[in-house]
Amino acid sequence: MPLFMDEHNNVEGLTAEAVAGAHQKDLEIQGQHGVKYLQYWYNEAAGKVYCLVEAPSKEAAKAVHREAHGLVADEIIEVREGS
Amino acid sequence: MPLFMDEHNNVEGLTAEAVAGAHQKDLEIQGQHGVKYLQYWYNEAAGKVYCLVEAPSKEAAKAVHREAHGLVADEIIEVREGS
Repeated sequence: MPLFMDEHNNVEGLTAEAVAGAHQKDLEIQGQHGVKYLQYWYNEAAGKVYCLVEAPSKEAAKAVHREAHGLVADEIIEVREGS
Repeated sequence: MPLFMDEHNNVEGLTAEAVAGAHQKDLEIQGQHGVKYLQYWYNEAAGKVYCLVEAPSKEAAKAVHREAHGLVADEIIEVREGS
């Protein structure tokens, strides 16, 4: 399945708890879109989040974020993982 | 140890082999700086690379790229990994 990295920039009021809560909502509904959010990394002060996600398409990955919590990524790009 | 995500944008002539070769060079010298490059993801067509790296400082992570192959990142940000 294609792999994507997304980026969220300047997320206001970002906290570890808020991003964990949003990620949990992704996990709860991702199955409806055949999507699997795998890992994420964040910087609270910068309001930055990276999400690594397996999805059948970019649109499917976006749909999960939109329906789960409304925080869609600013950028999303298909990637391959280095070995 | 602090964790960082870096981004390389518009890398010319990026191929899976080239990025794997550069990563291998990072691994060979990173110990001199107390750095550990953990994972990377790339998109050949876009010339994009993300590197996840444990390092004592942002400067140490940069020094490894600079000395190993000269391809320093365009951005680097300290991150925490979501659980």
